[in-house]
Amino acid sequence: MEGKNFIRCLVFIFSVVLVMVFTIFNFPHPLPTSSDLLECATNSAWCTAKNRILRHPTAANLRHDHTADVPHHPLDPLTIQEINKVHKVIKSFFDKSVYSVHSLVLEDPDKEVVLKWKKGETLPPRKASVIARAAGKNYLLTVDVESGEIVEHDTSHISGFPLVTLEDMQKVMSAPLASAHFNRTIVERGVDPKDVACLPFSPGWFGKAEDGRRIVKLECFTTKDTTNFYMRPIEGIIVITDLDTNEVVEIIDKGKHIPIPKGTGTDYRLSAQNGPIIKLPNPISMEQPNGPNFVIEDDHLVKWANWEFHVKPDPRAGVMVSRARIRDPETGVLRNVMYQGFASELFVPYMDPEEAWYFKTYMDAGEYGFGLQALSLDPLNDCPRNAKYMDAIFAAADGTPYVRENMVCIFERYAGDAAWRHTESPITGQMIREARPKISLVVRMVASLANYDYIVDWEFHADGVIHVKVALTGIVIVKGTSYVNMNQVNENENLYGTLLSDNIIGVVHDHYINFYLDMDIDGEDNS
Amino acid sequence: MEGKNFIRCLVFIFSVVLVMVFTIFNFPHPLPTSSDLLECATNSAWCTAKNRILRHPTAANLRHDHTADVPHHPLDPLTIQEINKVHKVIKSFFDKSVYSVHSLVLEDPDKEVVLKWKKGETLPPRKASVIARAAGKNYLLTVDVESGEIVEHDTSHISGFPLVTLEDMQKVMSAPLASAHFNRTIVERGVDPKDVACLPFSPGWFGKAEDGRRIVKLECFTTKDTTNFYMRPIEGIIVITDLDTNEVVEIIDKGKHIPIPKGTGTDYRLSAQNGPIIKLPNPISMEQPNGPNFVIEDDHLVKWANWEFHVKPDPRAGVMVSRARIRDPETGVLRNVMYQGFASELFVPYMDPEEAWYFKTYMDAGEYGFGLQALSLDPLNDCPRNAKYMDAIFAAADGTPYVRENMVCIFERYAGDAAWRHTESPITGQMIREARPKISLVVRMVASLANYDYIVDWEFHADGVIHVKVALTGIVIVKGTSYVNMNQVNENENLYGTLLSDNIIGVVHDHYINFYLDMDIDGEDNS
Repeated sequence: MEGKNFIRCLVFIFSVVLVMVFTIFNFPHPLPTSSDLLECATNSAWCTAKNRILRHPTAANLRHDHTADVPHHPLDPLTIQEINKVHKVIKSFFDKSVYSVHSLVLEDPDKEVVLKWKKGETLPPRKASVIARAAGKNYLLTVDVESGEIVEHDTSHISGFPLVTLEDMQKVMSAPLASAHFNRTIVERGVDPKDVACLPFSPGWFGKAEDGRRIVKLECFTTKDTTNFYMRPIEGIIVITDLDTNEVVEIIDKGKHIPIPKGTGTDYRLSAQNGPIIKLPNPISMEQPNGPNFVIEDDHLVKWANWEFHVKPDPRAGVMVSRARIRDPETGVLRNVMYQGFASELFVPYMDPEEAWYFKTYMDAGEYGFGLQALSLDPLNDCPRNAKYMDAIFAAADGTPYVRENMVCIFERYAGDAAWRHTESPITGQMIREARPKISLVVRMVASLANYDYIVDWEFHADGVIHVKVALTGIVIVKGTSYVNMNQVNENENLYGTLLSDNIIGVVHDHYINFYLDMDIDGEDNS
Repeated sequence: MEGKNFIRCLVFIFSVVLVMVFTIFNFPHPLPTSSDLLECATNSAWCTAKNRILRHPTAANLRHDHTADVPHHPLDPLTIQEINKVHKVIKSFFDKSVYSVHSLVLEDPDKEVVLKWKKGETLPPRKASVIARAAGKNYLLTVDVESGEIVEHDTSHISGFPLVTLEDMQKVMSAPLASAHFNRTIVERGVDPKDVACLPFSPGWFGKAEDGRRIVKLECFTTKDTTNFYMRPIEGIIVITDLDTNEVVEIIDKGKHIPIPKGTGTDYRLSAQNGPIIKLPNPISMEQPNGPNFVIEDDHLVKWANWEFHVKPDPRAGVMVSRARIRDPETGVLRNVMYQGFASELFVPYMDPEEAWYFKTYMDAGEYGFGLQALSLDPLNDCPRNAKYMDAIFAAADGTPYVRENMVCIFERYAGDAAWRHTESPITGQMIREARPKISLVVRMVASLANYDYIVDWEFHADGVIHVKVALTGIVIVKGTSYVNMNQVNENENLYGTLLSDNIIGVVHDHYINFYLDMDIDGEDNS
């Protein structure tokens, strides 16, 4: 697989260069006449659908070197230097044995300590909370960053496993192809093994046979004739795999009679569309020629209008908003509104009881990491031009730090509405026409959980409202079927979904998103 | 009163000139450095709060001469020439007697006629529907515009009265001051008659004594020491007036013990604010350097994305949207969605049973005209820069036409959101980052019903959704009280509202807005 990935990488780089060259010499839609318009080619190769007016490089293009970062606030995430220190401690803790780090984040100081702390004071002791796994055992460790002191918490009585790391996923995806049985099975279905992509679906064990093992079930797709392999499931084949050993435990195949849905018409990219109906709209953009009205102090403290709050990228929750306070316009004093808020879980159960579907009950935050799955935001596609970006520093499975650039964006939103307006009717002869534009501040991240993209916005309004919005977009995941129309379906048969197209069922499912909200409106003495 | 109004007008004009001169020489906030920024002074004197980046004069500044307008669509509103023709017919119908026109609008052709009509065909006969009043009698007339033929509909059996015209209101506002009794009463309350402004509140009769007369009840305010006279009611005085004769029928005074709330701190204008907390945000604007993506054909037919619909300003309903159709992306055929939609009534009952309040049960569309009360939109305050504007042609009380400029605006909205996006996770090595910006089309009007401002948006989305939004803003109307704090209020006493400030109660009330929606999704055969 290594060699194949390398070739894929080369092909990809070549394609990018090709598209860039093409973009420079053959602009995909009429060049704007005004010279202050887009410099698309400087930005990225995927600019055809970009909604932008680029005059200067955006803030997102200016890379920030995080190696010298130091924490400024008790809730600031662990820095690169801090993670490196903790990494050393973990390495020596596990001596020379193999281990994996499933979570390595700041252990938040107690709330009363944070509430008492004032800017300029020394920070409370910095501690790391680590979840690791070695020799089939889970470890929950607290590491004092400065002293290297380590406290091990006994987890031997706790059932369950830590979240699946990106490295776990990367590794397990190739496990089925190492099985001769699997390769035979898919060839019988007419699929060339070189076209196969397998995805680890909700981890977890069901029944006694699976108990005690770190099990994940993989479903496979063919990438042939489509960019959208989600539309081409090799239905009914489930590869039960052990995440610790990467070995195939069992292959279930209940889909021999189910054809693979066709690939034609599944490419959703703009470049693949044709016909007169698809037309790019003229660019439209939120512009702030004098710059935005907010500042980010010390990398994480956002100040906008009467609001002040702390933003921290987190591998599990995505974005954590803490110490949200609003300035009283009469007294000038900052009043507490929320101590902390974040998405605590995202639960997506599918309602199909068949063998290849019953276990699809995703816990996207706890199982995969809502933050780990948040890819870099694409300036102008994901956030408007005047957005500022925040990078995340996360720990890899070996405990070393890495940077996810532009994981969070912050921007002011204006949609042409008034926050307040009044026109005085001609009653007393006063000509009064007053309006205040409705401007809000948005803190955004986008988590791409395979087929689905979740856009999570924390929107702050000057009137004190915090509006949390979650937009769900991306691609639906489908079930293969032998049916091509509803006349073939017995009236007593339950499809557990809708026949969307030839050989494709959209399975009924829900998306539940839960939030942890520690509200402190005017202090802690309220419910 | 005529002389006084003339002086007010002079003072007003002088103030405007003063503010404009001041604005040119003393720009109220730092001038932007970029030359492509606002030319505020060219736009209006009330630009301090304007949210704009002006590069060119907006479309709203280009006045359109409507004298030669002709109708192009069966639902196009009556033109100036057509109203003039109808006016002549009405004048001759009433011979030399005094009459007033309360409504003069196109009588919509039957739906099947409109549905059959195709562009380029002759228009169905143009007819005007007229509601008039003369010698204490209501007339409902249908006038054939071309032939001048007139059909009178018998209304003698119908109880009730037509809507209050702007001229009715203008006239009746000065009626109380003609009464010596009224002047004595307000002087006893410490108010100088020259400071008084009286407003006609919900018309209608209550009880036998008022039956058969076109009655309106006026409440009065003092304009002294405030621009916001709504905050200074002369509570408890109700002037019952006959709208036909303009005579005062009765003066009720149950408020002798109620002081007039103080004027300090009631000026809501930005220019009156001081202190360090009020700060204008940097300008933010939706910009479309290549222009908008919609066209308005023949003055009323809007074409945007896959939508097509007809917009008509209406004196009673405000904005009427008709023949809304969406183009099927597969067949290219326009599919019916809505035959007609408009705000049919806006009902605002107050829940205070006291004599000065029980009758306050506004029917803002039917009694005052939601469209008649829609003042000209203020570019950049009410609609963003790339908005296009539509004027209304209405009939005055004498039946002659007048133009309400910029009554409706149409603009594309972009708020930094994606209509759809997908980032392909690193599964197959495909680097896919696709996004489509969420752009919608808004048709907006703002009705200023004295203290309240209603922003009515018909928002069209490319996915087929029509989203009707009504924003309520402006100033609350209050009740005077002798109380300054809640300790003074007997626990058994019901204030029917909240003590908002010294001597001010915000009375409990509702805002109901009803819509007429003739949905024709894929034709008429659905419910």
